[in-house]
Amino acid sequence: MHVGEERHEPVKLSVIKYDGANFEEKTVGKVEEAFKLRSKSSVVWLNIDGVHQPEIIEQIGKSFGLHPLVAEDIASTGQRPKMEDFDDYIFVVVRMFRFDGEEGETKSEQISIILGADFVISFQEREGDVFDAIRERLRNNKGKIRKMGADYLVYALIDAIVDNYFMILEKLGEAVEDIEDRLITNPTSETLQTIHDLKREMIFLRKSVWPLREVINRMERSESPLINKSTFIYLRDVYDHTIQIMDAVDTFRDMLSGMLDIYLSSVSNRMNEVMKVLTVIATIFIPLTFVAGIYGMNFRYMPELDLTWSYPAVLVLMLVVALLMVVYFRRKKWI
Amino acid sequence: MHVGEERHEPVKLSVIKYDGANFEEKTVGKVEEAFKLRSKSSVVWLNIDGVHQPEIIEQIGKSFGLHPLVAEDIASTGQRPKMEDFDDYIFVVVRMFRFDGEEGETKSEQISIILGADFVISFQEREGDVFDAIRERLRNNKGKIRKMGADYLVYALIDAIVDNYFMILEKLGEAVEDIEDRLITNPTSETLQTIHDLKREMIFLRKSVWPLREVINRMERSESPLINKSTFIYLRDVYDHTIQIMDAVDTFRDMLSGMLDIYLSSVSNRMNEVMKVLTVIATIFIPLTFVAGIYGMNFRYMPELDLTWSYPAVLVLMLVVALLMVVYFRRKKWI
Amino acid sequence: MHVGEERHEPVKLSVIKYDGANFEEKTVGKVEEAFKLRSKSSVVWLNIDGVHQPEIIEQIGKSFGLHPLVAEDIASTGQRPKMEDFDDYIFVVVRMFRFDGEEGETKSEQISIILGADFVISFQEREGDVFDAIRERLRNNKGKIRKMGADYLVYALIDAIVDNYFMILEKLGEAVEDIEDRLITNPTSETLQTIHDLKREMIFLRKSVWPLREVINRMERSESPLINKSTFIYLRDVYDHTIQIMDAVDTFRDMLSGMLDIYLSSVSNRMNEVMKVLTVIATIFIPLTFVAGIYGMNFRYMPELDLTWSYPAVLVLMLVVALLMVVYFRRKKWI
Amino acid sequence: MHVGEERHEPVKLSVIKYDGANFEEKTVGKVEEAFKLRSKSSVVWLNIDGVHQPEIIEQIGKSFGLHPLVAEDIASTGQRPKMEDFDDYIFVVVRMFRFDGEEGETKSEQISIILGADFVISFQEREGDVFDAIRERLRNNKGKIRKMGADYLVYALIDAIVDNYFMILEKLGEAVEDIEDRLITNPTSETLQTIHDLKREMIFLRKSVWPLREVINRMERSESPLINKSTFIYLRDVYDHTIQIMDAVDTFRDMLSGMLDIYLSSVSNRMNEVMKVLTVIATIFIPLTFVAGIYGMNFRYMPELDLTWSYPAVLVLMLVVALLMVVYFRRKKWI
Amino acid sequence: MHVGEERHEPVKLSVIKYDGANFEEKTVGKVEEAFKLRSKSSVVWLNIDGVHQPEIIEQIGKSFGLHPLVAEDIASTGQRPKMEDFDDYIFVVVRMFRFDGEEGETKSEQISIILGADFVISFQEREGDVFDAIRERLRNNKGKIRKMGADYLVYALIDAIVDNYFMILEKLGEAVEDIEDRLITNPTSETLQTIHDLKREMIFLRKSVWPLREVINRMERSESPLINKSTFIYLRDVYDHTIQIMDAVDTFRDMLSGMLDIYLSSVSNRMNEVMKVLTVIATIFIPLTFVAGIYGMNFRYMPELDLTWSYPAVLVLMLVVALLMVVYFRRKKWI
Repeated sequence: MHVGEERHEPVKLSVIKYDGANFEEKTVGKVEEAFKLRSKSSVVWLNIDGVHQPEIIEQIGKSFGLHPLVAEDIASTGQRPKMEDFDDYIFVVVRMFRFDGEEGETKSEQISIILGADFVISFQEREGDVFDAIRERLRNNKGKIRKMGADYLVYALIDAIVDNYFMILEKLGEAVEDIEDRLITNPTSETLQTIHDLKREMIFLRKSVWPLREVINRMERSESPLINKSTFIYLRDVYDHTIQIMDAVDTFRDMLSGMLDIYLSSVSNRMNEVMKVLTVIATIFIPLTFVAGIYGMNFRYMPELDLTWSYPAVLVLMLVVALLMVVYFRRKKWI
Repeated sequence: MHVGEERHEPVKLSVIKYDGANFEEKTVGKVEEAFKLRSKSSVVWLNIDGVHQPEIIEQIGKSFGLHPLVAEDIASTGQRPKMEDFDDYIFVVVRMFRFDGEEGETKSEQISIILGADFVISFQEREGDVFDAIRERLRNNKGKIRKMGADYLVYALIDAIVDNYFMILEKLGEAVEDIEDRLITNPTSETLQTIHDLKREMIFLRKSVWPLREVINRMERSESPLINKSTFIYLRDVYDHTIQIMDAVDTFRDMLSGMLDIYLSSVSNRMNEVMKVLTVIATIFIPLTFVAGIYGMNFRYMPELDLTWSYPAVLVLMLVVALLMVVYFRRKKWI
Repeated sequence: MHVGEERHEPVKLSVIKYDGANFEEKTVGKVEEAFKLRSKSSVVWLNIDGVHQPEIIEQIGKSFGLHPLVAEDIASTGQRPKMEDFDDYIFVVVRMFRFDGEEGETKSEQISIILGADFVISFQEREGDVFDAIRERLRNNKGKIRKMGADYLVYALIDAIVDNYFMILEKLGEAVEDIEDRLITNPTSETLQTIHDLKREMIFLRKSVWPLREVINRMERSESPLINKSTFIYLRDVYDHTIQIMDAVDTFRDMLSGMLDIYLSSVSNRMNEVMKVLTVIATIFIPLTFVAGIYGMNFRYMPELDLTWSYPAVLVLMLVVALLMVVYFRRKKWI
Repeated sequence: MHVGEERHEPVKLSVIKYDGANFEEKTVGKVEEAFKLRSKSSVVWLNIDGVHQPEIIEQIGKSFGLHPLVAEDIASTGQRPKMEDFDDYIFVVVRMFRFDGEEGETKSEQISIILGADFVISFQEREGDVFDAIRERLRNNKGKIRKMGADYLVYALIDAIVDNYFMILEKLGEAVEDIEDRLITNPTSETLQTIHDLKREMIFLRKSVWPLREVINRMERSESPLINKSTFIYLRDVYDHTIQIMDAVDTFRDMLSGMLDIYLSSVSNRMNEVMKVLTVIATIFIPLTFVAGIYGMNFRYMPELDLTWSYPAVLVLMLVVALLMVVYFRRKKWI
Repeated sequence: MHVGEERHEPVKLSVIKYDGANFEEKTVGKVEEAFKLRSKSSVVWLNIDGVHQPEIIEQIGKSFGLHPLVAEDIASTGQRPKMEDFDDYIFVVVRMFRFDGEEGETKSEQISIILGADFVISFQEREGDVFDAIRERLRNNKGKIRKMGADYLVYALIDAIVDNYFMILEKLGEAVEDIEDRLITNPTSETLQTIHDLKREMIFLRKSVWPLREVINRMERSESPLINKSTFIYLRDVYDHTIQIMDAVDTFRDMLSGMLDIYLSSVSNRMNEVMKVLTVIATIFIPLTFVAGIYGMNFRYMPELDLTWSYPAVLVLMLVVALLMVVYFRRKKWI
């Protein structure tokens, strides 16, 4: 199984219980506490930060009646985004991206969400702030999130994750523009490496968004009673956002491919420039050196050697030849 | 959200109300004025220039009973073309292109259209003249536009936008031909950049037209009572135009790809030419310089040096060698 | 709208009326004359050469009850092949190719065909001979064309156009083989241009045949009473021909792509050859010139200079060095 | 129409009539003889070698009640594989490949098969041995072929043709491996040509097998009473074989594409090697020659010239410079 | 037929019979012994190591009532993964990969599985350990495998094979990273070969997994009573794993393609470096040598030659020219 890097910090379970009128928020130590909070008229949202303690996931699985394979998928964090309908609950896996400033590359994390009739369980690999805005909206009863059901909360979670993609895209977009500038001013083989790295990041991004799009589409078309028809229009909206992301990613990939061409062409242009300098210097001086060689020969009978004006004459001749060459190269636009 | 550049000019609301017999046109200050004009027997067309004042879009949303997400989509102008059927009204987003002479590149703008039973609302990002011809036809009762319903007006709007694409295509087509000429006469690395820029514009165009095609297709196949069957044939016609645009865009892309090949080949040909000049000069003079070097040696016993005719003989020998080289290079077609 | 080049020659209207027993052929001046000829038991074929007089197309539209958009599509000759079923009649647009000997390139022309219950109207952009064989078969009652209905005539027209594609393909095939020979004997940058031109022609051809295939497919699957089931098998046959054309076009494109590779490789091989000559000459003579330079130095104490045999010895040494070099290059297969 | 090369040998008609108990084989002169042999309880297989005598195909068409277009398709041998259901009979076209040893390339031939209720007619372009194994099995009542109906015989024919593809593939596979060896030992521009030729052969093969796959698929899914359900499993088996062929062809194509890359890279590596030799020789001797030039100058006051040890000192200096250069190039791994 | 390499070791037949309560394991000599063990309430798993003795496969076919084509497919081990439903039993072919350490490449092996109502037969080409974990789980009654039916056992077999793919992928992933390092430190033409070899392995892997995915999908959607609905969720899980493998393979392929670009670019960069060294040396010394040549001429009247300070002056001039050159090249970033 593909599992993330080993972790040792304790797993954090935080519960929010809300309905139109009430709001309750706390951190629980045991799964049972969260399970007992369930009630027909309100929504219970259990968020788990950390999937590295299998016994917790197992407990949740038992309490909420999840299939063993679901627990397995939550724990092994290399899953592709997918949506599975188990009648009693819907299991959704999505991937979130995060820009790791230290290593200068994006990293992806698996977010597993379980939507039941009156509860939502979300699993993050590590504590993050992507859902903070939703918590805030719940606390302050902002918008209609408190009036809607558990399905709307799941929509809000996915929407937050998709909005996060836009931020990642912006970061990558800046990197692409940065590379574009460098390509013109000073292309090095490092630039090539960076173009390929960015291309690979785009591929990773695409591989996460493409199935995510499918997940949302399936939720939208699902006939599960767990998802209200009134939520469909919101899912459609997130769906449109994923397509916008795909479009942007494809555009960046096209741009990066174009940059590869420009890079290779600029390398070849430099080679050309080097060759031209060599050619200009060599073709100007080789004939002159030949002339000097002629009058360096030791034949006894070389009448020119004895004439007073022949030395300056030869110098002038050399100058004329050199100038003609220069004019010729100017015309050819080599110098 | 992706929003266009910031704007400060006031938003302009213009209303046209018409039926077969009557025509009324005015600029209103408030949304309510437009809403009150609605009547069963005539069509009210409300055109808004500018989407940068959210309160106006909100007001329209409330008056005409639009879903909040629609208002959001109108305001955030990075939407892909799409068509959404809300039973009471149909929401259509298309993109229009405009050639910005100053920056020498095409820019795209989002046009949002709402089709109700007896009204049409259109949103433009900035005041433009693309719908002027339609206004003129309505004013002068030209063609059958006044006799048809609101759905035909929406068709006319989309048709005007699609016709605008043809104009953009023509401009890009001229740029492509221009680059093709330059490619033969004087290819520079700037030419390469321009080819890539044009390719990118083609990609952007394609990305706008491709979903637009889908939008029109869905409208044509829609079972909404808001679109009459008699309008289908017109939608089919616009649909055909979008396919023509796609064809043209693809042709231009193929041409630009071909130009890339030709550019690279011409750069490589120039390199060849440079190398040939160097080779010709070097291979002619290096042996001659060697001969001169021979007779520049200071050995005491070099019988040739003392002969009267050896100097001119050596000169003649050099000339013959040079001529033979020239003949050889001629044969090789290097000079 | 995309319209062809301007034309001024008069539009020619020729009518053929036939059934199993009778045949009548004449050139008419007015559309009405043709319209009056219609009768239930026979087929009237009205062929119009030239679409540059909109009033004639308009008249035909009115007489035969065509939709205004059909008239528009006939006049604007940049249409893609398509088939539209208007219940009373079927409107078919196909494209025909013609090899323009003067400009040495293929040109395409729009052929619009209208199939009614007892009439066929065909529009050509200019007078051509592609339908002459059909006229001949009608005149001489050859085959079963006179016994079949209007739908069979439309099949015959399309079949004639598709056969014409095979002729164009043969011409292009010859051009491809021609270029292949030149590629081996004498590749120039012109060859590259021709390969790209041919590739573009293939693309144009493909873009005409691909939708034509769809047109025929839709006719074959159409449930219109205007097309008899007995004609389906013939349409299937034309359909197979369009696929053969597509196959051939794709094969040619693959061949042309391969030629591009070979061209570039042969350019690079020549560069190699140039470099080898330079390297051989330079590496042979540079060391020899150095030796000559040594004995051209003016040191007072250079014992070799005074020996009688040192001059010929040095000459022999140089010869040996040169020979060794030649042997080395032979082994490397450079000369 | 695409017809094969002209032929003059007489067309050969051989008939086999069999059922579980009886077997009869003869060569007939006229089509009628074969037609008369038909009986409800046994299968008549008429094999025709040669399709260059249209009158024979016409006779067969009349006797067996075939559609005129079928006769046309049999005679014009450039057809793509296809399957057409005419209710009374099924018409199948497949293509067979044959390795022409003389010209060193594969050639394709059209095999047309007609499956009736109690008869099978097969047309080959030329006499071949691909069906001999089937004749043998019929003669010796080997396997269950004699117990099965006409549809099983058609399966057996197609199976024999598909098996033949495997033999062709093996030949091509050997050629690919051969080229791979040559690519490493001695790549020439001929190698490039061969790679392209093999690639083209793969394309041709693919173009024959791809529609063949479709033919078999359609037979398998056909609801014609002419094909028994018990034969479906056999058709499925052939279908799997065609997919195996497609897989192998695609693998070979990928390998050939990789070889192209390797070829180009090895050409470029050689260029590198040539350049390195030139650079090493030039950069070692050019400075030395310069030093020799210094002491070849004729200044009156050059104190070094008069010292006894300066000549050997300069020689040693030159040697040291040359050795340093060699060490430098060794480090750079140029020599 | 494609058959594996010839083998001579005896074929091994091992049988496991189990239900919730009982477990029996033995090696049998004859097929009949295994057949007799069948009972309604328990599952019999017959595993055969080696398919090179057709008579054994034939016996099994007869005993268990398999179609002759199934026996053929088991024996000819070049099959693509497929699933065929014969009502009484389901026939599944999958491919397993194995890393051959000696030859340093992956090898694939065909695993054929037959699922009956109360039995499973599995065929391996050679004895392997991939199913050992399953045997262990059966022996120790670990998990629920003993409580489930024959279909669950088939799932477990396929799951073991798919898990094996992950191990192969890891090995290939290491090889890819290894090549990536070498690409930066020391790219040779061998590196290029390895990249292509790895690319080919990826293609082979993809060609095995792609149809496997389809096999599992079809099993999951199958309406055969042999597969319980409760097993579907497990099949879905394996299905997800195959998609993960496809994703990883595609990522590796993209990485390898990028490496090809980097390899070619680094070769070209080296060429550049070689050229620069040549150019720097040549352009510095060629002018200096020319100056030395000037003062090596033997003209009688060269006033500079007689001045005391002209020799050191010329040396200084040369030094200045050389230094200027060096500064120029530094600026150009050539040295």
